[in-house]
Amino acid sequence: MNASLDALLNPRSVAIIGASNVPARIGGRPIHNLIAAGFQGHIYPVNPKYAEVQGLPAFRNIADIPGPVDCAIVAVPAIDLVETMRACAGAGVRSAVVFTSGLAEMGEQGAETQRLIATIARDAGMRIVGPNCLGVAVPGKQWYGTFASYPAMKLMRSGSLGIISQSGAYGSHLYMVAQSRGLGVSHWVTTGNEADVDVAEVIEYYAGRPEIKVIAAYAEGVRDMAAMKRALAAAHSARKPVIFMKVGQSTVGAAAAASHTASLAGADALYGALFAQYGVYRASTTEEILDVAYACQFGEFPKGRRVCLQSISGGVGVLMSDAAEAAGLQLPALPEPVQQRISQLIPFAGTRNPVDFTGKALAEPALIEEISDLAIGSGNYDSYVIYMASVASSPLTRDAVAAVYERVRQKHGQQSLMLSLIMATPEDKAYYERLGMPCFEDPSLAVRAMGALSHFGEAFERKLPSQERQRPAGALDLPSAPIDEYQAKKILASWGIPVAEDRLVRSRAEASAAWSGINGAVAMKIVAAEILHKTEMGGVILNVSSADAAAQAYDTLMQRVRTAYPDVSNVAVLVTPMIKGGIETVLGVMNDPTFGPAVMFGLGGILVEVLHDVTFRLAPFDEKEARRMIDEIQGRAVLDGVRGAAASDVDALASALSRLSFFAAENAGKLASVDVNPFLLLPNGAVALDALIIPKS
Amino acid sequence: MNASLDALLNPRSVAIIGASNVPARIGGRPIHNLIAAGFQGHIYPVNPKYAEVQGLPAFRNIADIPGPVDCAIVAVPAIDLVETMRACAGAGVRSAVVFTSGLAEMGEQGAETQRLIATIARDAGMRIVGPNCLGVAVPGKQWYGTFASYPAMKLMRSGSLGIISQSGAYGSHLYMVAQSRGLGVSHWVTTGNEADVDVAEVIEYYAGRPEIKVIAAYAEGVRDMAAMKRALAAAHSARKPVIFMKVGQSTVGAAAAASHTASLAGADALYGALFAQYGVYRASTTEEILDVAYACQFGEFPKGRRVCLQSISGGVGVLMSDAAEAAGLQLPALPEPVQQRISQLIPFAGTRNPVDFTGKALAEPALIEEISDLAIGSGNYDSYVIYMASVASSPLTRDAVAAVYERVRQKHGQQSLMLSLIMATPEDKAYYERLGMPCFEDPSLAVRAMGALSHFGEAFERKLPSQERQRPAGALDLPSAPIDEYQAKKILASWGIPVAEDRLVRSRAEASAAWSGINGAVAMKIVAAEILHKTEMGGVILNVSSADAAAQAYDTLMQRVRTAYPDVSNVAVLVTPMIKGGIETVLGVMNDPTFGPAVMFGLGGILVEVLHDVTFRLAPFDEKEARRMIDEIQGRAVLDGVRGAAASDVDALASALSRLSFFAAENAGKLASVDVNPFLLLPNGAVALDALIIPKS
Repeated sequence: MNASLDALLNPRSVAIIGASNVPARIGGRPIHNLIAAGFQGHIYPVNPKYAEVQGLPAFRNIADIPGPVDCAIVAVPAIDLVETMRACAGAGVRSAVVFTSGLAEMGEQGAETQRLIATIARDAGMRIVGPNCLGVAVPGKQWYGTFASYPAMKLMRSGSLGIISQSGAYGSHLYMVAQSRGLGVSHWVTTGNEADVDVAEVIEYYAGRPEIKVIAAYAEGVRDMAAMKRALAAAHSARKPVIFMKVGQSTVGAAAAASHTASLAGADALYGALFAQYGVYRASTTEEILDVAYACQFGEFPKGRRVCLQSISGGVGVLMSDAAEAAGLQLPALPEPVQQRISQLIPFAGTRNPVDFTGKALAEPALIEEISDLAIGSGNYDSYVIYMASVASSPLTRDAVAAVYERVRQKHGQQSLMLSLIMATPEDKAYYERLGMPCFEDPSLAVRAMGALSHFGEAFERKLPSQERQRPAGALDLPSAPIDEYQAKKILASWGIPVAEDRLVRSRAEASAAWSGINGAVAMKIVAAEILHKTEMGGVILNVSSADAAAQAYDTLMQRVRTAYPDVSNVAVLVTPMIKGGIETVLGVMNDPTFGPAVMFGLGGILVEVLHDVTFRLAPFDEKEARRMIDEIQGRAVLDGVRGAAASDVDALASALSRLSFFAAENAGKLASVDVNPFLLLPNGAVALDALIIPKS
Repeated sequence: MNASLDALLNPRSVAIIGASNVPARIGGRPIHNLIAAGFQGHIYPVNPKYAEVQGLPAFRNIADIPGPVDCAIVAVPAIDLVETMRACAGAGVRSAVVFTSGLAEMGEQGAETQRLIATIARDAGMRIVGPNCLGVAVPGKQWYGTFASYPAMKLMRSGSLGIISQSGAYGSHLYMVAQSRGLGVSHWVTTGNEADVDVAEVIEYYAGRPEIKVIAAYAEGVRDMAAMKRALAAAHSARKPVIFMKVGQSTVGAAAAASHTASLAGADALYGALFAQYGVYRASTTEEILDVAYACQFGEFPKGRRVCLQSISGGVGVLMSDAAEAAGLQLPALPEPVQQRISQLIPFAGTRNPVDFTGKALAEPALIEEISDLAIGSGNYDSYVIYMASVASSPLTRDAVAAVYERVRQKHGQQSLMLSLIMATPEDKAYYERLGMPCFEDPSLAVRAMGALSHFGEAFERKLPSQERQRPAGALDLPSAPIDEYQAKKILASWGIPVAEDRLVRSRAEASAAWSGINGAVAMKIVAAEILHKTEMGGVILNVSSADAAAQAYDTLMQRVRTAYPDVSNVAVLVTPMIKGGIETVLGVMNDPTFGPAVMFGLGGILVEVLHDVTFRLAPFDEKEARRMIDEIQGRAVLDGVRGAAASDVDALASALSRLSFFAAENAGKLASVDVNPFLLLPNGAVALDALIIPKS
């Protein structure tokens, strides 16, 4: 796979089909860019109308080219596309970048044409990017396979960022803003309609390139989730941060995305799960992508979220504290002795964290050094963000402070240090950047970027999601027929999920006996696979408090069934103990066409109904991942006990979620959905009070 | 008040006490800046050591100055401050900017000194800014009463933004970033320790200045809430947007703020209430302040939140949709006929809203004009944000598109239009800015700024908060003694808040009779002002279902009281009907030392306990404001009915909240807090099932 992307991204010979003599035209720009950049490989314009194009000998058709062609840029109208692709295949072209639009994005006829050229290419072993894409570029190789128009044909600055975007226009926007911020790009690929090469494959390719340190991706939807998981796993293994802008978080946005790419976008929440499990950072704006990419370039990822904020201004210290909380960073206090020492050094400094070392420290940089030593020496922190105002505005202070951090580095080795400073030219910032310190003008955005670095640091410390599924001895699989509550609970119990101690009864006598066996208040419910809405038809009777009452309740329930569902046979009644107290939660499984089975968790009642306070993970996952999932809900504190209630058994919950994921993964082909509502958490243990499993029809 | 700020902000004669010959020194920089700027008034250096300072004749002391002094810049050590201020007072100096530090921020001794100079100044009718401040500046008058150091002594660009900051360093940071973004500043004030002039007074002053169009404020706490309300009301009346960075939103931030300013920060949520009621926009980062300030300069504030997004890139359209939802903007669809027309014009354009007019429109600008006409003509929108990529990068496209919007303006008059474009120099942007169109590079941030403009537009359409308090006939006021539940409910009922139909009983017989009068399930509760935690002591019995049971319950309750509280006399029992269904909410009043009484609302149970899903408003407020408050809670949808439950009577809720605010405002001097939990909402009506009023001790 990767070898064949080499032809696309590191070609030694390029043909431009539909070549134009006019540099501004779609078929002219690539040639102009390649020449201007000094591309070292062969450039073969193809156009029967010309003998020469932009000073290069032109060819009537692809077959006339005397040597091998690694990559053909295809800039022909849709009506000529099939013939062109056949010609390329016939000539042994190794890859093609297809600008041509009017294909799948147009409707079914275009989609048919697109499938045809995909087949032609696949059969010939030829890789395709596009169609309907803006092309590719690798500045370090002077490779510009794109018709994107840059003012004055400015060429990309080379660097260590790999950009992959489904949208050509957005990819262009992102790269232009990156360039204006001084961020160099190593590889730039836009995949358009993704007839062949898709975002996942490019991410995997980038993960393997030594010159790429950071990957930024833009996508509206993902077609091949298995390929995407492999790609994200490769990036994680290579410790390459992936910054992902998956758009369509809002309802209108998702609808717009669906219409734009003509692909299934997939539930946005499941992208959240994917990213959480693979350590991907999700960005919401272009600025955020580039802030984080810039910070990532320095390759320093704090292993935890404890940050020490230091500032020349108390006010900015407060501002950064607010930003730290928003970014999910923690602000443990400096040890008391350290705080006292700082007070001695700088009277009326703020000392807790944030440290306000006041303007005095700029006048006496040795104070900054001592505070750095003390903070790092405390061992309390994973990272440090320091607001230095206009320290770089005078060479004197700029150099003095740079010397401080040089010594700090020598003494303490690699630390995650970041500066916020204003009025600093790129040259000024270089004084600190060469020490591995990212420099941000805005202190709030600096802290946000440190949050992202911490996200990656924690992610790299975690193992990759295991695809392991533990199948307990005796675990039951799904039948294909509809399943009633009793059967559903049995199946879940066989996978290790705790369920209520149900007894299935089929007569008054059995009902009484079941009650006596439990000897406490019970609930009695109709059980029949066809009857989904028991409560609404009166199919549930609570608080049955004696054997006689149980017999009575049995009769009542059966009567109601006969009235409401005269045609349903094989109806039984479940007798189950009523449990006092506990916290109601909801567990579920959805089987998404794109993502496969995903497990959902939320607190019960209003929190699920109205606030949608739920969290997802893609199956399968282990208990460690389940705990992370549990910690994401807004109402998390409920599980620690409120209003004097005891804390819930979170271990039991994590175990159930993980085992549910194993069940779902093993039965992915047969499962539509699972609902366990409520899943009751107790101080010791947990129990599913209801269960609904719907097989695929 | 305002007239005396004129001396501080538009002085015709300035003295610098502690004047230095060295331009870099604190006592030297103001003189250097004034001379370099070409200040037209008199400049009088005061320092007994010199005959001349920076080329100007110097004076031994303030009394020696031959003419009046509008403003004295005081740059003396703390130990000389009192004497200096006495001398200024004696010399009839009209105002002073006091740089001197080491006062209230140091501790009690410094605070004592600060109070002394405040008294000296007040007695002499002299206004003070500071002490411990960075000073003031009014570039348009060449007035630089500040020792802030700017590289190469660069002078501020004049403009229409008024900056007021408690923190000198942050004020400096903000102004420097504003300058680098090309935003001119009209007035710049830092108030430091606020011995006299505070943030509120400066906001009110700014509201009255014709040259100031936008106000940006930074504060860690507010001392005089009445003055702040007056100031914000003045700004609102003058239609001047106030962008407020109130820091300390996070727990650590609030603690840091409290230590930094040595003032009571006040509950952060109450700042949220203040800002909501006065239409203030709360910013979280420097970038956000300046994005919004920039957009506000154009003076165009959409009256509503319906935005139309248009884009040259489908992907960016999706991105902007996500940003719109985050900014609280709505995206109603274009009318069907308009969508069809757009499809005809541009095949495969996105048409719903966002409109993806593709690259085709850049090649044919007339298409952009027609789409603008159609969108504006539909009447569906209050604002429009258009992503135009690199349209300005070529003069041809830049001018063609500018001409389009010129015609659009001529045809449709004032509309809220905003562009996002990249690769645009300030000169390029001017082509659109002169048409009243703000230009942002980042499309997500453009949409956020439009959200801010819409916030102000809606706020300006609303009336100012009324201070009116409606006092119903027969309304009861607070006694000073502790109040039991029965009395509390009577008081609230007298103010028009619906309460449960309670009966107070003092014997078995009365209990039975009360039950018979209600003739349904009742709850019975101990009533005694001293007993606050009834439930914990078994002082509540629910589901009492007969007259006999009522008599029994009475005995049980009285027995429990005698056991748990043998010394409490005058205990009665409340008999109250149990009400089925309904939604539990929580109403409350807190009497904050800074803000005065504030009303709280939240949904009951877990939502209040764990999620803190509550909202506040400062008392008093009307029902319209109450409705806005209700709409702010996350769980709002619950009130519209979920899981088949009927919708709640939101009118009754709004009425109760407003009346509670009138009660709180009228009893502010005597009230500590009120808790109505639960306040039960029904499909028709609402009822307080419990009430606790705690008077000030």
